[in-house]
Amino acid sequence: MSNLADKKCEACSIDASLVNSVDFPDLLNGLEDWSIVKESINKLVKTYQFSNYADSVSFANMIADLAESEDHHPKIVLEWGEVKLEWWSHKIKGLHMNDFICAAKSDKIFNNL
Amino acid sequence: MSNLADKKCEACSIDASLVNSVDFPDLLNGLEDWSIVKESINKLVKTYQFSNYADSVSFANMIADLAESEDHHPKIVLEWGEVKLEWWSHKIKGLHMNDFICAAKSDKIFNNL
Repeated sequence: MSNLADKKCEACSIDASLVNSVDFPDLLNGLEDWSIVKESINKLVKTYQFSNYADSVSFANMIADLAESEDHHPKIVLEWGEVKLEWWSHKIKGLHMNDFICAAKSDKIFNNL
Repeated sequence: MSNLADKKCEACSIDASLVNSVDFPDLLNGLEDWSIVKESINKLVKTYQFSNYADSVSFANMIADLAESEDHHPKIVLEWGEVKLEWWSHKIKGLHMNDFICAAKSDKIFNNL
């Protein structure tokens, strides 16, 4: 699944399929430094580090642009020097393939900074 | 303290004074709908609602601009339709007057949208 970033998110309905957890290792293998965090629901979480505030704000905005273009909106937590992203699918209260795609696209954006 | 938004944050050192908790009610009285949340440390927290993503992103950027102009940086949590702000002073692990000033300025920005 190293080509996740080349895919496009599909519309997620309330009866869409959750990604099967047996596929998590392979999917995570296609991402850089992402982990799945179990809260009440699974979320795909990563924190990116920056050496200044302007760069972190700029990255947060690029992720917001991605969110609009995919019509899939993560939690973006912006602090000085870091941006934490949490991707999950609200309607199905868990991880849809969309989330892995958007995680990969987030990394691609970060790596092209 | 209704004029908090007219004040300017001062540089916060590790020996700066925490706001005395007896002053919290009066200070909160000068703000709109802010509450103080006790985690391991006190933080001043508020969630603003928006009817679309673009407006929430725009507000988050205005708060980021405020953060740079005050050299005081909150946690900004951006999700679809809402922005949660958490103001606290890292160096003193609690609430400095700067935090109340920035909360007031955040409200001023929101109210002028």
